[in-house]
Amino acid sequence: MSYFIGRNREARETYGFDEIALVPGNITVDPEDTDISFKLGDIRLSIPFMASAMDGVVNVPFAVALNKLGGLAVLNLDGINTRYENSEEVVNEIIHCEPSKATEVFQKIYKTPVNRKLIARRVEEIKKAKVPCAVSCIPQNAAEYGPIAKEAGADVFVVQSTVITVKFESSMQKSLDISKFVREMKIPVVAGNCVTYRASLEIIETGASGLLIGVGPGAACTTRGVLGIGVPQVTATVDCAAARDFYYKKTGKYVPVITDGGMLAGGDVCKAIASGADAVMIGSPFAKAKEAPGKGYHWGMATPHANLPRGTRVHVGVTGSIEQILFGPANTDDGTQNLAGALRTSMGALGCHNLREMQLCRIIIAPSIKVEGKLLQKAQIVGMGKQK
Amino acid sequence: MSYFIGRNREARETYGFDEIALVPGNITVDPEDTDISFKLGDIRLSIPFMASAMDGVVNVPFAVALNKLGGLAVLNLDGINTRYENSEEVVNEIIHCEPSKATEVFQKIYKTPVNRKLIARRVEEIKKAKVPCAVSCIPQNAAEYGPIAKEAGADVFVVQSTVITVKFESSMQKSLDISKFVREMKIPVVAGNCVTYRASLEIIETGASGLLIGVGPGAACTTRGVLGIGVPQVTATVDCAAARDFYYKKTGKYVPVITDGGMLAGGDVCKAIASGADAVMIGSPFAKAKEAPGKGYHWGMATPHANLPRGTRVHVGVTGSIEQILFGPANTDDGTQNLAGALRTSMGALGCHNLREMQLCRIIIAPSIKVEGKLLQKAQIVGMGKQK
Amino acid sequence: MSYFIGRNREARETYGFDEIALVPGNITVDPEDTDISFKLGDIRLSIPFMASAMDGVVNVPFAVALNKLGGLAVLNLDGINTRYENSEEVVNEIIHCEPSKATEVFQKIYKTPVNRKLIARRVEEIKKAKVPCAVSCIPQNAAEYGPIAKEAGADVFVVQSTVITVKFESSMQKSLDISKFVREMKIPVVAGNCVTYRASLEIIETGASGLLIGVGPGAACTTRGVLGIGVPQVTATVDCAAARDFYYKKTGKYVPVITDGGMLAGGDVCKAIASGADAVMIGSPFAKAKEAPGKGYHWGMATPHANLPRGTRVHVGVTGSIEQILFGPANTDDGTQNLAGALRTSMGALGCHNLREMQLCRIIIAPSIKVEGKLLQKAQIVGMGKQK
Amino acid sequence: MSYFIGRNREARETYGFDEIALVPGNITVDPEDTDISFKLGDIRLSIPFMASAMDGVVNVPFAVALNKLGGLAVLNLDGINTRYENSEEVVNEIIHCEPSKATEVFQKIYKTPVNRKLIARRVEEIKKAKVPCAVSCIPQNAAEYGPIAKEAGADVFVVQSTVITVKFESSMQKSLDISKFVREMKIPVVAGNCVTYRASLEIIETGASGLLIGVGPGAACTTRGVLGIGVPQVTATVDCAAARDFYYKKTGKYVPVITDGGMLAGGDVCKAIASGADAVMIGSPFAKAKEAPGKGYHWGMATPHANLPRGTRVHVGVTGSIEQILFGPANTDDGTQNLAGALRTSMGALGCHNLREMQLCRIIIAPSIKVEGKLLQKAQIVGMGKQK
Repeated sequence: MSYFIGRNREARETYGFDEIALVPGNITVDPEDTDISFKLGDIRLSIPFMASAMDGVVNVPFAVALNKLGGLAVLNLDGINTRYENSEEVVNEIIHCEPSKATEVFQKIYKTPVNRKLIARRVEEIKKAKVPCAVSCIPQNAAEYGPIAKEAGADVFVVQSTVITVKFESSMQKSLDISKFVREMKIPVVAGNCVTYRASLEIIETGASGLLIGVGPGAACTTRGVLGIGVPQVTATVDCAAARDFYYKKTGKYVPVITDGGMLAGGDVCKAIASGADAVMIGSPFAKAKEAPGKGYHWGMATPHANLPRGTRVHVGVTGSIEQILFGPANTDDGTQNLAGALRTSMGALGCHNLREMQLCRIIIAPSIKVEGKLLQKAQIVGMGKQK
Repeated sequence: MSYFIGRNREARETYGFDEIALVPGNITVDPEDTDISFKLGDIRLSIPFMASAMDGVVNVPFAVALNKLGGLAVLNLDGINTRYENSEEVVNEIIHCEPSKATEVFQKIYKTPVNRKLIARRVEEIKKAKVPCAVSCIPQNAAEYGPIAKEAGADVFVVQSTVITVKFESSMQKSLDISKFVREMKIPVVAGNCVTYRASLEIIETGASGLLIGVGPGAACTTRGVLGIGVPQVTATVDCAAARDFYYKKTGKYVPVITDGGMLAGGDVCKAIASGADAVMIGSPFAKAKEAPGKGYHWGMATPHANLPRGTRVHVGVTGSIEQILFGPANTDDGTQNLAGALRTSMGALGCHNLREMQLCRIIIAPSIKVEGKLLQKAQIVGMGKQK
Repeated sequence: MSYFIGRNREARETYGFDEIALVPGNITVDPEDTDISFKLGDIRLSIPFMASAMDGVVNVPFAVALNKLGGLAVLNLDGINTRYENSEEVVNEIIHCEPSKATEVFQKIYKTPVNRKLIARRVEEIKKAKVPCAVSCIPQNAAEYGPIAKEAGADVFVVQSTVITVKFESSMQKSLDISKFVREMKIPVVAGNCVTYRASLEIIETGASGLLIGVGPGAACTTRGVLGIGVPQVTATVDCAAARDFYYKKTGKYVPVITDGGMLAGGDVCKAIASGADAVMIGSPFAKAKEAPGKGYHWGMATPHANLPRGTRVHVGVTGSIEQILFGPANTDDGTQNLAGALRTSMGALGCHNLREMQLCRIIIAPSIKVEGKLLQKAQIVGMGKQK
Repeated sequence: MSYFIGRNREARETYGFDEIALVPGNITVDPEDTDISFKLGDIRLSIPFMASAMDGVVNVPFAVALNKLGGLAVLNLDGINTRYENSEEVVNEIIHCEPSKATEVFQKIYKTPVNRKLIARRVEEIKKAKVPCAVSCIPQNAAEYGPIAKEAGADVFVVQSTVITVKFESSMQKSLDISKFVREMKIPVVAGNCVTYRASLEIIETGASGLLIGVGPGAACTTRGVLGIGVPQVTATVDCAAARDFYYKKTGKYVPVITDGGMLAGGDVCKAIASGADAVMIGSPFAKAKEAPGKGYHWGMATPHANLPRGTRVHVGVTGSIEQILFGPANTDDGTQNLAGALRTSMGALGCHNLREMQLCRIIIAPSIKVEGKLLQKAQIVGMGKQK
């Protein structure tokens, strides 16, 4: 709904995961009978879980492990794995540096240029395990890195920046022609990130095989704090899924949308699919895997930015294996393990047999938490006093 | 009201206890003159309070004590009391284990199969005290346990799962035919949990004598966090009560709805009735009774789940006897004791003579906590407890 | 605005102090030129501040001090001052008892019956200082205490219960005939508490000279937590003021409404007047006065309730004299001192010359605080981690 | 949108920075190509950043440093710099006094009268550095200080009070005739603070060259707590910008509006411009500059108020140079450094080439913090600071 936020100026109300909930269906379905597979281009993945291209989350061993289980990890070609042979050591340096030095260490490490040979080598290392291989880079590097990765055997190429649009205006930099890139790559190209109907539709029309959804989704997201920009994930996903549905109706081609960011537990994943996503890309939940290179730490690509660093390394701890995180048995009770099991159980209660049905389930607005402690302090100062 | 949460996708706004308040009436009534009795099938209970089928709350002695006072405790036939003769010892093991081992201990204890003989024995133990006896199990076990319990003298049978629907689709499991079960049991059957008009109406049409309302009601509820599913209790109760009223108007048969979960203090109980409930089922408030087997701890049936454990044991402490909790005198000042007194006092201020009148009282939307940390305290005092 | 909170059930959205703010006017006025006087019956008070009939706030010396300054304190005839000659000692007992014993101590102290002779004596003690004298009791005692107080010289009589209505139904207790009481008392009678248009209008029609507004106003209010009942103060004040305005238009008689409860600092007082109040009754802000008997503690009359105690003693500390609290100079910077100065300054910025103009100023909805710390804990559990 | 907050009483919903977010555009633009310059009268500033006239933020050296970088600092003619020759020493006294003595120290220091000779001297000291010079005072002093400052070479004069209106009614004080003042001053006059369409339009019609927007913008703002008055900054900016646009359409004269207050990090600045501002005036972010006289402390002009002190000194710490704060490289990752870079980056993602285009970007309602404690951290890190 739109509201006037002042004279002659309207703004839509938007929604994130914490503001909605799903409503049980009129029938229930045995979770064992649900189908949660997902198709990206011609590749069918048995589970709709992708791992974010973050240096604390995905390296070669992690990608091999996740992809064997039916998911798809994306290796960042702009990161540590292609800048350093000994990427593990470098990641360790980040993990062990003092908090006060973190920004400096980040900026130093990411100054080393990308080694083109390592691009091919990382792809080959993953392919050696006979699993699908997905890699990513920013638009500026795509024209160069894309062919190298494809040559080396990559199955999926992801072009990703904070905000992607078909048209980028610059007096100095060259802009990536996404349509041309897609045509030449031939392997599925996923592009992102988008949050609006129109930008999604324009990307879909370039021939991309998938779309990443999400700009500044989390309330605490750096993009939102530093740039003021962001769209909560439920609204972003619903809108971009509408572009997908429109294009599908018009052309018969179904381009999956992948919600990227802001999901912490099973419930968030369920809500993303219910909002219209075909799959999810998650970072923080996988950063807790013992296979993740960050050993419980993760950070985004804006963190090492030379001039405008955003975010910092975040500690989430190590809680279990990728397998536990995806399939259980959970040894935690907070919904961060057995994500696939949670998805199936949720589908059962919603009465959905597959993800496409789940995209149609009933959503309600149900703000989750309003209680808090910070305010107590204000109350104390102002004079409500304490109970004695 | 419905809002667009994105293109072509509408969602209703829903409400929980913390978001509403009751408005004093145009007359006031002496609390001593109010009638708070409630009828379930042919059984008239002098107070509308049922105790949840939780192993930390209801065992035989607790059921006898509560039912003597006019309430109705539900003994869980899938729990510790029917798996172990020495149920008290087993409950003690849960209470005293280390926090880090809790999930493991739970999973181990609930692996022991149910002993059919104990089903009958527990019912007989309760009936020996000449009080009504209510027992429960999940739909999958109802066809088997129901007749045993009825034979042994049970007065009320509760069929309960996270979400119940008349139709359950499974390629492997057999689905319970609720209509048939109700017909054959003859004693009142209560089914749950429901949260929607349609699912409630379908259950009512099976001939059930009562309906449990509530799926993921609490803001911090595990169902909501892990599965994304949940409907706040006020909206769920209003909707299901509407199904009851429709059916009553159509057939003349009045099937009570019982709000189950999310109530911590007297005010929540009052709001549940005002939302349309005929009675409430509460766990946490009764877990504080000195008669409760959990000695101040409680947990739900999802906690010991083998693959997708949810929730954990919660510590609420022991504050008084069942009688104090229901009828006072309160030795706490937070609304968790003298629940029946609070209900009567509230009815007096609302100008209501009985529960049916209270279902018609005026409700306002009045979010409870935005600028006070007070609720944090309330949560602590009132008994949400801390995770241990 | 009304919303459906479920099928066929509507509820109005309501507002408290924290959800609104006042908008500066099109002109500004010198605060020194503002008139903040207020008329109750034939008594003109130079400031619109009344002190709540709480035993921790008002005793004889406090009443004398406040009333000399132009305000009006209400002495509780059902409290310690009329039960005990040595009321100070008794208050000290409450203040110094151990927290765990507080409820018990309260219940014991308030068991001693009221001494009728002390009613007259307290009134005379106040009148000896040649200031107006206001006293209060519950409706059940009004017919008896009223004449005693009037005989002794009381200028204003307050009849107060949690919720007052003209019609009270009881099979055992006698109901107060408010019209008759007002007629016979002749001195101004103030009645409360009300929160709705209709109940206010009915009270006004009995001939009462003033109306107290407020039932369960605070978010953390006991009435709301224990009984589920309460209406946020802005909406309650607007509604009751509408009844006053209707009656004034119809009869030419202006019956002031006094907002009672939920105000902590100057801004809340300003908002109460802007919502339509003619004056405010405050407890907590005056409990901080060094003249207050509670020495920084206060409690309500529901706290010592024998069967359903609500609330507890609250510690607010001692910050200054009544004069400082009302007129400054403030030695705190949080808006809890110089309340009259804050009111005048606000009126200046709003462009209002007197309280009646202030009742017409522009109000906006502007929720004040949403940030909090409690949730951090949830975030940590769920896995957002901490920044390192 | 307007809502009834009670009978016959409507109130608009209003919005602050935390409740909105900006939506990425349909194209993206290279941040290097964006134009963020801003014109005040005939003075073109290369960046739209003004520094608040606060004694902890702006003194002569700070003004010289900021204005050299393209911004514009406002020196307070009612403050320490014009009361004391040795202003640094006096600021030090404030910084180093004990918290409990702060209000007293403030009140003492601000009792010393303004020395007219220092007004001219401070202006000359700034002009000596060949940078633009802006100074401010309250309306009561403008007629006297204005000519002195102009004589000494000031380029911009700011007339500022909590709330300014063209008409001020007082029986004792003389009111400033703003139109006459503007006519006589000839140099650009900026007036504030306003928050409504009508008051803005009236000020613009006096011939003022700029408008300061903001009264009680922050949720924790003293004006709001003590006086109940305040309008969240997004709505205030949108409304006042509408007055500017109306006047521009009618007369062809463009009078910039400058949002003043409530901005902590880059995202807030971006949102202010997107709401319609032509520039921002910030205090707290500049108080962190090593060039700021307060050495990490700041306070407003209401703090030393003799009778109604509001607010207190706030500690934000020193994080870097003015240059770092404006242009980076950032050594913090929280959006409080490289504000100009953040603005350009945001404009790039929004697809805006200049500030006027950014005023038209798409805004959504997206409350920032409901379920994360993250904002608590943000508040701490970002610089709201703690009270000392």
